[in-house]
Amino acid sequence: MSLRIDASRKIVIENVYPELDCGRYAVKREVGDPLQVRADIYKEGHDAIAAAVRYRAEDEGEWRESRMHFLENDRWGGTFPLERNVRYLFTIAAWTDVFGTWRSDLKKKFDAAQDVASELLEGRRLIADAVERAEGEDREGLEALLRELDATSSQAEQVAVSADDELLELMERWPDRGDLTEHDRTLPVQVDRVRARFASWYELFPRSMSDDPERHGTFDDVIGKLPYVRDMGFDVLYFPPIHPIGLQFRKGKNNTLNAGPDQPGSPYAIGGEEGGHKDVHPELGTLEDFRRLVAAAEEHGLEVALDYAIQVSPDHPYAKDHPNWFYIRPDGTIKYAENPPKKYQDIYPLNFYGEGWEEQWEEWRDVILFWVEQGVKTFRVDNPHTKPVQFWEWMIREVQSEHPEVIFLSEAFTRPKMMRALAKAGFTQSYTYFTWRNFKSEIQEYLTELTQGPMKEYFRGNFFANTPDILPEFLQRGGRPAFMIRAVLATTLSSVYGIYSGFELCENTPMAPRKEEYLNSEKYEIKAWDWDRPGNIRPLITRLNQARREHAALQEYDNLRFYHADNDNILFYGKATADRTSIVFVAVNLDPFQAHEATLWFPLDVMGMGQHDPWEVEELLTDERHFWHGSPQRVRLDPDAPARIYRVRAWRSSEQNFDYFMKPTVVPTPGR
Amino acid sequence: MSLRIDASRKIVIENVYPELDCGRYAVKREVGDPLQVRADIYKEGHDAIAAAVRYRAEDEGEWRESRMHFLENDRWGGTFPLERNVRYLFTIAAWTDVFGTWRSDLKKKFDAAQDVASELLEGRRLIADAVERAEGEDREGLEALLRELDATSSQAEQVAVSADDELLELMERWPDRGDLTEHDRTLPVQVDRVRARFASWYELFPRSMSDDPERHGTFDDVIGKLPYVRDMGFDVLYFPPIHPIGLQFRKGKNNTLNAGPDQPGSPYAIGGEEGGHKDVHPELGTLEDFRRLVAAAEEHGLEVALDYAIQVSPDHPYAKDHPNWFYIRPDGTIKYAENPPKKYQDIYPLNFYGEGWEEQWEEWRDVILFWVEQGVKTFRVDNPHTKPVQFWEWMIREVQSEHPEVIFLSEAFTRPKMMRALAKAGFTQSYTYFTWRNFKSEIQEYLTELTQGPMKEYFRGNFFANTPDILPEFLQRGGRPAFMIRAVLATTLSSVYGIYSGFELCENTPMAPRKEEYLNSEKYEIKAWDWDRPGNIRPLITRLNQARREHAALQEYDNLRFYHADNDNILFYGKATADRTSIVFVAVNLDPFQAHEATLWFPLDVMGMGQHDPWEVEELLTDERHFWHGSPQRVRLDPDAPARIYRVRAWRSSEQNFDYFMKPTVVPTPGR
Repeated sequence: MSLRIDASRKIVIENVYPELDCGRYAVKREVGDPLQVRADIYKEGHDAIAAAVRYRAEDEGEWRESRMHFLENDRWGGTFPLERNVRYLFTIAAWTDVFGTWRSDLKKKFDAAQDVASELLEGRRLIADAVERAEGEDREGLEALLRELDATSSQAEQVAVSADDELLELMERWPDRGDLTEHDRTLPVQVDRVRARFASWYELFPRSMSDDPERHGTFDDVIGKLPYVRDMGFDVLYFPPIHPIGLQFRKGKNNTLNAGPDQPGSPYAIGGEEGGHKDVHPELGTLEDFRRLVAAAEEHGLEVALDYAIQVSPDHPYAKDHPNWFYIRPDGTIKYAENPPKKYQDIYPLNFYGEGWEEQWEEWRDVILFWVEQGVKTFRVDNPHTKPVQFWEWMIREVQSEHPEVIFLSEAFTRPKMMRALAKAGFTQSYTYFTWRNFKSEIQEYLTELTQGPMKEYFRGNFFANTPDILPEFLQRGGRPAFMIRAVLATTLSSVYGIYSGFELCENTPMAPRKEEYLNSEKYEIKAWDWDRPGNIRPLITRLNQARREHAALQEYDNLRFYHADNDNILFYGKATADRTSIVFVAVNLDPFQAHEATLWFPLDVMGMGQHDPWEVEELLTDERHFWHGSPQRVRLDPDAPARIYRVRAWRSSEQNFDYFMKPTVVPTPGR
Repeated sequence: MSLRIDASRKIVIENVYPELDCGRYAVKREVGDPLQVRADIYKEGHDAIAAAVRYRAEDEGEWRESRMHFLENDRWGGTFPLERNVRYLFTIAAWTDVFGTWRSDLKKKFDAAQDVASELLEGRRLIADAVERAEGEDREGLEALLRELDATSSQAEQVAVSADDELLELMERWPDRGDLTEHDRTLPVQVDRVRARFASWYELFPRSMSDDPERHGTFDDVIGKLPYVRDMGFDVLYFPPIHPIGLQFRKGKNNTLNAGPDQPGSPYAIGGEEGGHKDVHPELGTLEDFRRLVAAAEEHGLEVALDYAIQVSPDHPYAKDHPNWFYIRPDGTIKYAENPPKKYQDIYPLNFYGEGWEEQWEEWRDVILFWVEQGVKTFRVDNPHTKPVQFWEWMIREVQSEHPEVIFLSEAFTRPKMMRALAKAGFTQSYTYFTWRNFKSEIQEYLTELTQGPMKEYFRGNFFANTPDILPEFLQRGGRPAFMIRAVLATTLSSVYGIYSGFELCENTPMAPRKEEYLNSEKYEIKAWDWDRPGNIRPLITRLNQARREHAALQEYDNLRFYHADNDNILFYGKATADRTSIVFVAVNLDPFQAHEATLWFPLDVMGMGQHDPWEVEELLTDERHFWHGSPQRVRLDPDAPARIYRVRAWRSSEQNFDYFMKPTVVPTPGR
């Protein structure tokens, strides 16, 4: 009957943070963050315990340790630095602090005037054992203290030696860890580069960069547009697929079927006789032209992001060379994409579990690696929720184990649990429901879920305000004021956001009322944009991107907090860095049609201020400055200036302030 | 670089309920409950999926399956019966519902007037494959449907065959489970007997049952008291330790030290020359007398619970035979219990990790098994938080794998996480902070945590209203009304509770003001109780135990809900069975000094009633009956009748009611 007695868990270690799905998935952090670790750690009786975080980067052999400290209610906390853009592993070790327990008990007994002869003998043994463990100067130090102990027969003097701080320090360096217990699991942390958390994305169609609807744009045309994008302050430049486009069932303007070869077709119908996913559309240029573009972008402080869409047109080489990678009908033909009864005949979906699937998975991974070699480190992934989650998990790990700098953005507008599963599986960033959250309570609820709930550990919401597939109704109906509102929200609610060209020009004509498709969508034709269109909001976008660069509070993701404004049309929120050197508040009138007023209740405690302290306010969109006192502040927001962004700080003495005012305002060089 | 591709997880199964600490520990249920299982289950694309719970009792070889059903938002639910008092295991399996997907897509395409020739060929193949898998009549049935399909060339007719319900049923019985995915873990469920959840405990000191302070009571005296205990309606009779008591450092009245051999000493100073944990105190009787007591108790509908305290007096045989099981001083003597600077010299604590520890652990297990053989199935365990959690986990599993009916009650008044760890480790029931929760908001908060939070899955709070160590201040100051209040709370907030003799007599004299020790505590002397003491509340206790037996709602644990009463002195709550045939509400005036009134807001939706429906109220303490309408009802509660317990039901037609009123009230025979 006897079960084998497993007595390895002498100390309880549980409720470890951060841990995701029992350690099945890695939480995400960025380089330079310290990882805050927490755990419940305790054992029976009244012994003192000690604990440490054990950690290493995945590519390091040696474990390092960082001591943890008791917080309260059996909760312990520790931290270790995340210095590199690699995956880290950590676990927790705990042991009985034998010496600390002995020392503490000794003091209590001695102070109660009890005879401690026996206790002192025990302590001597503990120190003698430590001498055996110790090395170098520490060993000598312990031996010296032992001699000091032995030199006197007075209990009081021996007790004094045992209370010696140096002895404590030495004993803590060479502890008896006989009952060391480790957490059941080793936990992974995916440490990405900072741009995973803080970036501003701009999406454009390279073929439209000719500014001429009759001429297919080239990579060189895109190079010509880099100053435009850079001047607005973006740092990621993203293109829909740049590969050859199929001929069969090619789509035409406004998604018409079978438009013919003179139409450019949809970039998502990938592949033709000119090649597939490792090739570039010949009218865009050559692979060498592309590399030149990547290099030029880098000189402009921009990194290029490519679209990665696992699907092929009927003309793609894979359809000919690897028919078994697809779904085959009984008559041997390949099935095109469907969502019955809808058909998408310009696209073949892939069968991830058919014949030769392992070879297929490796090919899709190699497509990414190919573009990494061309200098691309960021991929926006099209509809990952129609491909197996475990494929993404494998592929992203494959790529990041060699290239940890690679960022994957998940474009999965689907059910919430699948969106979360993809993020857990490894997607660095994800599109969200942001475009459909326009009013106060739904914004507060959704953003609280994203930035303060469990999702914040692994899901980074990239707040694209529009996409080639999504022209939100709010923009259609609200016009220019609505674009300004959404620009402020996107740039300040999340630390990573994007727009698709035309947004800054307030392009808002839909294909039909109540539909989110653009009229004459750039997906099906070459568009020439008037970059100086009257009414454009380029100055606002520029100012917002600049504010993001200048104010560290806006570069964090999970520091968003909502505050009270007494008008349901006015949203009021703030972000601060942990050290409070950067504190930013935003008030937005969400109604594009009408002005509204509200009292904003500033959280003086967060700001570190008392009710009567003066605080300096710099409004970033108007450059107005104020001195305010107290929590409630009244504001009026008009649709033509629907937001205020307040940078606040405590008012300092005139001496400090003189220096401050004499310094020129520094605009940092664009970061990578 | 290549990671081995693990493609075993084709379907995502996550967030499984009930699961405790990643399956490390078992959740608890009772025999006769169905286990409600939930999980998030989904995959990429738009295929339909199917899922099942796989389960078996730990001692069964074969897994059984129970199909799950889609609830909403990717959440699936299933259930399986917990028929026996053993540990069960379950997991979840999911697979693509290939036929269901095909059938659904076919219908959509056909209804859209598309050519479905190819689809029909695919479907035929699916049915043909199922024929190969099927057996017996089902195989014949499928073959017949296949012939029907082949018999016609009309697409419409073939579509009709494919929509056939019989075909669907057969295909669901013989599914293609090629991509079957199982949950990462198998999850345990500890299924205890019903008394683990529903029981009323009475604690007494056998040696006091002589009713004569000069004569040490015997087991026969206890037999004489069985009617007293049974008549009040209890079902578990619990004794402090019944073993020989040590002589060295024996304690005297009111915990005086070194009282001498003529004092009976503390039952917790276990062991003397007459024996140890497997022996009985000679003045109580013999082992055979004890067995007679157990049998007699059973005839009275009572089960005996023993106290299990892992500690010894200096005279215990283990101290002589196994000194290495203890903590030894440098001079070779055994350490007595301490919490510096306090000393407990009549007790030696055990060292669970010293020399011979495995043999020691087995001995402690064998002590339990010894008493199980004497007929005891319930053990109240003294101070388990001073012994290793992993010892309890091992020992309880050892015992329950042979004797799943054994119940362990944890007496750990300690920090909350340790209390929870012991429950997770296997303790069937646990003492709680109940005695220190006397006022409205703290009761609501604590009881909500216990009965509605995560603890409800594994922690059953046994609400002892007093113990030999705890005479709560509320009872000391509040007198008889306070006893009535606490009796109502204990018996109705939890489905398992207890009292220590004297409670029903309103014994409330402390050793000193603000202390929780009884004066002249029964722990240190033989006490003769006046069982008919004036002012006793035996009738109330009796009525409460009877109400618990008659009303199923009071026999459940996690069905407790608090409702609104507009007076902070009046607590209002209710319990209902899932089928709503038993609904009980309780209103208690928590102030023992003063009467209070309140409006009680009855939750008509829970009661299944509309605002104007008449509902019948039976007040269980006064036997008053009313007809009420509407949610708000006014009540006045005096300290001498501080509570009302309302059984409510809808008023029925006179025909049904005639039958109902003519039936005699049934008092069920006491359960086991």
